[in-house]
Amino acid sequence: MSARLLKNVNFKLITNSRLYSSDVRKCTLIPGDGIGPEISAAVQKIFATATVPIEWESVDVTPVKGPDGKFGIPQAAIDSVNKNKIGLKGPLMTPVGKGHRSLNLALRKEFNLYANVRPCRSLEGFKTLYDQVNVVTIRENTEGEYSGIEHEIVDGVVQSIKLITEEASRRVAEFAFKYTIENNRKKVTAVHKANIMRMSDGLFLRCCREMAEKYKEVKFEEKYLDTVCLNMVQDPTQYDVLVMPNLYGDILSDMCAGLVGGLGLTPSGNIGLNGALFESVHGTAPDIANQDKANPTALLLSAVMMLRYMQLNKHADLIERACFDTIKEAKYLTGDLGGKAKCSEFTNEICSKI
Amino acid sequence: MSARLLKNVNFKLITNSRLYSSDVRKCTLIPGDGIGPEISAAVQKIFATATVPIEWESVDVTPVKGPDGKFGIPQAAIDSVNKNKIGLKGPLMTPVGKGHRSLNLALRKEFNLYANVRPCRSLEGFKTLYDQVNVVTIRENTEGEYSGIEHEIVDGVVQSIKLITEEASRRVAEFAFKYTIENNRKKVTAVHKANIMRMSDGLFLRCCREMAEKYKEVKFEEKYLDTVCLNMVQDPTQYDVLVMPNLYGDILSDMCAGLVGGLGLTPSGNIGLNGALFESVHGTAPDIANQDKANPTALLLSAVMMLRYMQLNKHADLIERACFDTIKEAKYLTGDLGGKAKCSEFTNEICSKI
Ligand SMILES: CC(C)[C@H](C(=O)O)[C@@H](O)C(=O)O
Ligand SMILES: CC(C)[C@H](C(=O)O)[C@@H](O)C(=O)O
Repeated sequence: MSARLLKNVNFKLITNSRLYSSDVRKCTLIPGDGIGPEISAAVQKIFATATVPIEWESVDVTPVKGPDGKFGIPQAAIDSVNKNKIGLKGPLMTPVGKGHRSLNLALRKEFNLYANVRPCRSLEGFKTLYDQVNVVTIRENTEGEYSGIEHEIVDGVVQSIKLITEEASRRVAEFAFKYTIENNRKKVTAVHKANIMRMSDGLFLRCCREMAEKYKEVKFEEKYLDTVCLNMVQDPTQYDVLVMPNLYGDILSDMCAGLVGGLGLTPSGNIGLNGALFESVHGTAPDIANQDKANPTALLLSAVMMLRYMQLNKHADLIERACFDTIKEAKYLTGDLGGKAKCSEFTNEICSKI
Repeated sequence: MSARLLKNVNFKLITNSRLYSSDVRKCTLIPGDGIGPEISAAVQKIFATATVPIEWESVDVTPVKGPDGKFGIPQAAIDSVNKNKIGLKGPLMTPVGKGHRSLNLALRKEFNLYANVRPCRSLEGFKTLYDQVNVVTIRENTEGEYSGIEHEIVDGVVQSIKLITEEASRRVAEFAFKYTIENNRKKVTAVHKANIMRMSDGLFLRCCREMAEKYKEVKFEEKYLDTVCLNMVQDPTQYDVLVMPNLYGDILSDMCAGLVGGLGLTPSGNIGLNGALFESVHGTAPDIANQDKANPTALLLSAVMMLRYMQLNKHADLIERACFDTIKEAKYLTGDLGGKAKCSEFTNEICSKI
């Protein structure tokens, strides 16, 4: 497949870019570590079967030592994402040892991916304790407790700084409201602890309220994080779209994933001003790597989110349906879902449905 | 009932004080706001029926204006807790308006109540999605994100400081291990995000590891907060005792309460160097106040925790059994539990079982 590149695509600050042409586009692929390459190959196979007009540009992000002696993402990988403005990423190992920060975080930072979107829906035919879960967590993805600013003030006294800015709060709040409208959803819940962090969460909350004023067609409510956690395990159907600072999103998105079957089944997208990176957020599962046992669902559904973001909705629907049906029929399930199928069998079954 | 006061009782840094005599002791009672007085009266009635050797000293904590113009807890209330070194507290309203910080927090601070203990157990006969839940969250209760230190650095840029000290971390970690041993439990899980807050959560984690070395008879594991949240909604039985910094405890304890039926059913104890305060952590429910509709269970079970702390185990067992049996029989349940009984009927049923 050859591709005509769309350079200088001017992304709007919206959830779905409507600016792509229907030509074949290049997408950066970061296969990742452990089971990453296998599940990436599965996605590529399924995409090829569905004749998705995408050409993959595979890059390696194993950290390389820069001129300053520090480890960082290889320039070729950065260039690829900057050029294609869209990427799919498998799980990455965080290198061990001091000074190595999480590569996942480095990527979010490098590309200013300010909103992390994680839809969690009950999968038909895959039983958990919960039915009818259908929530989306939208997480501020660039600051908060993830500022990385920490000091040991005196021996045995450490402070970590939670940084909240109006700019980042407003931008993610606006994203949440637009996302809600574009996806025909009804309600945004701002999740906070402004009863404790009155200034920082207070600022975040004010920005949400401002957007609620601007997008009056969307229902808006404010809830304490602890209350949301309590409610969520009792009746998740009371929530729709939730927006919150970084750490709260980390927690809530995992919790919601737990309700519907875990990180192996839930997609994730990181949306930025200049592009977007979709990724499965489960681990690298080194214990089953290279054994054709991994479940590619989370990465596949992330890729489906990517297709929707690119306005390739028909391809997205087709692939998603095939994936859901395969899970529902439960003939070819991987080990994590209680089945005995290999990754390749599960993948082939999806392809056969396309 | 008259009381011989035990003054200058020398509390040890342990979970249960073994230093009480068997005489009648004074306990401070803070009935609280909204439904607080009703449920406090219910507890008092049940305690009287069980002839618990306690004399209540009821105090009001409605904030009063001090000489400096600031609102604070009335001195009489402070004196009472300081003297009795033990208290039971109903729900408190946080006064509205700037400058008022949560009274609950003020009490934790005033008495240096460094460990918040919240056991969550499935109640026999009260059905939720989960069976066999039996976890205890132990929350650092004095610092972390609750430091109250916040600044607006420049317009639209706020920082909140998360403060972690070796002293507070070590003390709550040690508490968790001792609690585990004294309550015949097996495992402590340290919950953290040291992958992100490497220094602050890192310090907390190191203190937990140190205590794991000291109390080798207890199993020890470390888990990321997001992972715990995910696991908890899938299979809470994998956890036993969990210890964590302040905010994480706020979140996890509410979530665990949700698994077994909510804050109306779960007790809470705040343990300090010089005393302890047991409290129900649900709201004041002003909508049903003074209507004899409230459920006193959370406050009653908190009072039962208090009895165990005071080594009044027989009274504790008796009252707890009567409460559990009443819920199990489901003849006299309050509205929140799906029944139609009044608070007084529920209370009388418990009394009749004692
Ligand atoms: C891997 C880790 C740094 C990351 C986070 O804490 O954000 C992960 O939990 C996530 O949610 O993507
Ligand atoms: C009332 C509020 C300040 C408090 C907290 O955040 O700690 C509450 O949620 C709790 O858990 O006791």
